[in-house]
Amino acid sequence: MNPGDRVRVDRADRTYEGVLLPSSTDDNLVVKLEGGYNVGVDRDGADVDVLAEDVYEIDGTDSTGADEAGSEIEFDDDLPTISLISTGGTIASTVDYRTGAVTAQFDAEDVLRAVPDLAGRANYRGRVVANILSENMEPPIWQDLAEAVHEEIAAGADGVVVMHGTDTMQYSASALSFMLETPVPIVFTGSQRSADRPSSDNVMNAVSAVEAAKSDCAEVLVCMHASESDDVCALHRGTRVRKNHTSRRDAFETVGAEPLGEVDYETETVSFRRDYQQRDAAELSIEPTLESDVELLKFTPGMDPQFLDVVEGSEGLIIEGTGLGHVHTDLIPRIEELIEDGTTVVMTSQCLEGRVCDRVYDTGRDLLEAGVIEGEDTLPGTAKVKLMWALANAEDVEAAMGTSLAGEIQERSVPWE
Amino acid sequence: MNPGDRVRVDRADRTYEGVLLPSSTDDNLVVKLEGGYNVGVDRDGADVDVLAEDVYEIDGTDSTGADEAGSEIEFDDDLPTISLISTGGTIASTVDYRTGAVTAQFDAEDVLRAVPDLAGRANYRGRVVANILSENMEPPIWQDLAEAVHEEIAAGADGVVVMHGTDTMQYSASALSFMLETPVPIVFTGSQRSADRPSSDNVMNAVSAVEAAKSDCAEVLVCMHASESDDVCALHRGTRVRKNHTSRRDAFETVGAEPLGEVDYETETVSFRRDYQQRDAAELSIEPTLESDVELLKFTPGMDPQFLDVVEGSEGLIIEGTGLGHVHTDLIPRIEELIEDGTTVVMTSQCLEGRVCDRVYDTGRDLLEAGVIEGEDTLPGTAKVKLMWALANAEDVEAAMGTSLAGEIQERSVPWE
Repeated sequence: MNPGDRVRVDRADRTYEGVLLPSSTDDNLVVKLEGGYNVGVDRDGADVDVLAEDVYEIDGTDSTGADEAGSEIEFDDDLPTISLISTGGTIASTVDYRTGAVTAQFDAEDVLRAVPDLAGRANYRGRVVANILSENMEPPIWQDLAEAVHEEIAAGADGVVVMHGTDTMQYSASALSFMLETPVPIVFTGSQRSADRPSSDNVMNAVSAVEAAKSDCAEVLVCMHASESDDVCALHRGTRVRKNHTSRRDAFETVGAEPLGEVDYETETVSFRRDYQQRDAAELSIEPTLESDVELLKFTPGMDPQFLDVVEGSEGLIIEGTGLGHVHTDLIPRIEELIEDGTTVVMTSQCLEGRVCDRVYDTGRDLLEAGVIEGEDTLPGTAKVKLMWALANAEDVEAAMGTSLAGEIQERSVPWE
Repeated sequence: MNPGDRVRVDRADRTYEGVLLPSSTDDNLVVKLEGGYNVGVDRDGADVDVLAEDVYEIDGTDSTGADEAGSEIEFDDDLPTISLISTGGTIASTVDYRTGAVTAQFDAEDVLRAVPDLAGRANYRGRVVANILSENMEPPIWQDLAEAVHEEIAAGADGVVVMHGTDTMQYSASALSFMLETPVPIVFTGSQRSADRPSSDNVMNAVSAVEAAKSDCAEVLVCMHASESDDVCALHRGTRVRKNHTSRRDAFETVGAEPLGEVDYETETVSFRRDYQQRDAAELSIEPTLESDVELLKFTPGMDPQFLDVVEGSEGLIIEGTGLGHVHTDLIPRIEELIEDGTTVVMTSQCLEGRVCDRVYDTGRDLLEAGVIEGEDTLPGTAKVKLMWALANAEDVEAAMGTSLAGEIQERSVPWE
């Protein structure tokens, strides 16, 4: 048997029939099933029948086993047009057979071939903005991405799906939330497991993201598994979402609230728990400029005050303080100097949930007197992106940081919060 | 009416009888009830009857309204001896009437006077190690604290309760977890709301911590409200706990698992969900030395590489990376230089839940090749404290960072994790 053969694999009372794909390890067989799923089967104890040899051409760059002809999808006037924008990441990646690691090498058209389940749901436009692992995401690429999304919507897309690595998806979703006013959904999705792993989440996440992009919610959303099961994807507001687990498929969570909505994978219904901005409520517009000279510092006991020296001359600093928004009091005079020199300093909390309040304790009051701005309950990472945007676009940066521009500040759940 | 008067307050169908305390605002009346609780009542619409004038002396430093004579507690041979160690923080604080803010000014004996419910549960020894707001906690104070706890246990304490500000409680609990082998419980507790607020959690937390300190679990624990109700305190392992909310009384959570145990406040029963180290299983010992020249850096997109320059020459660095443990690939050569220069670099994840794994993607593999050590699923803050301890005490630091020394690394919940 060779990659590209149609095979039937029997193991432990289960039978899989499909195309054998190259596997990244000797321990596994990877079979591409009819529905587009790839399943991994332990080679140990597996019986393999070759049903037909070499039915698909497999090579290093096209290893999906999909028929090239399958990408020729006809335009259907009755379907909405969804723009698929790829930035790289696991959902748009395949295994690098040389190293056994996962590298990004697909464009959006390839994703469509790799996920046949997307067919028939929309007319697709494909576009590649970047081809990076998301830890290499940088503010200039956020600007490229926002401009690409803007162009796609201006060109008539009824919704946009952004395929993005999960490591920094929350930062990019925040960036687009501040940069764009949108009349259509902009839905980020990705994958926590690569497509050749039996537990890959790429098909369900991509399909659910397309359904969300067809919905009535014209916001920047993140669409990822809501549980370890393949039943529901959660829809998170881009400014309130956080990758809260390194490896689980349901790693993404809305911090401090239930997700905004969800996509039921079986029934393909999209539903929402709270108010959201309706499709066509906003005019399309873009403010992609960023002041990228903004840093984030997490305070921990024993922190070297010299980290504040690096910030000297910077335009902005997000502090991830303790509790209600504190740092060691010895740091306050240095922070005051930074502010006097023109750095905008915003306090957030490493607690992640709850609101910063620097009026309760002496330390906080001293920070406020030094000129530190309270970030309310904005997540620290979101606050960094927002401050980059506000410094470039807001007339009153302090007022902007205290105002919810894109859902990043939640209503107080209790009066004292 | 004046502070110190015995009063009856009627408001909105509720009646409170007790001693009027000074209030930090004009909007509230604060009444110390018989049971030791302080309750805040909205002054607007409240009817106040003065039952007796000036029954307790109130001044700026003793504002609990407790009778000084109440602190003369007799020694009871039938009760265990619990050492109460104060480091400051809300539970040991009162309102600063000049500013309206909360400052730390009580020692452990004062706590006992302020929380009469502690009486009869144990014989107490009081000790003040520090009197700081916990954002000012520093590694040398962890050493003082560990030595004080060690002395108290050596002197016969059957359990230790450490009163600590909540901002950095998790860091201090981690420090003591690594520094001490203990035959008795060491229980950290604190308060999210000061004693003059109706919602104060100080009485229940202190009482529950004493009950936990009398239990059979000879570990370093954090005892704080398990929910917003006054029913159960959770017992968290010191190395796995995190303050996950800025203001809620149940802000503390065990990350990635249920809490180790709990204290039912009504029935005063202490119960555990998982195995723990039994009382008297370990010999008392202390290794309080720390290499405090260890930094923590949280990587976010757009981070200034100069932050790594600050670390140059440091003994240790914890990176809080993205996802499975990544940073921008441009930073890897600089990290490799640090390691070559003798800095021990450990990778953790800002996801907080889940395990670092740098063997999956190219970036991670490059980090491993550069000499970065995987911190498994150790929380970033705990990893910083552990690395300080390991650099001073472990023969093989890399091996120590990959081994659970005090419950900081959890068992894999699933094979691929």
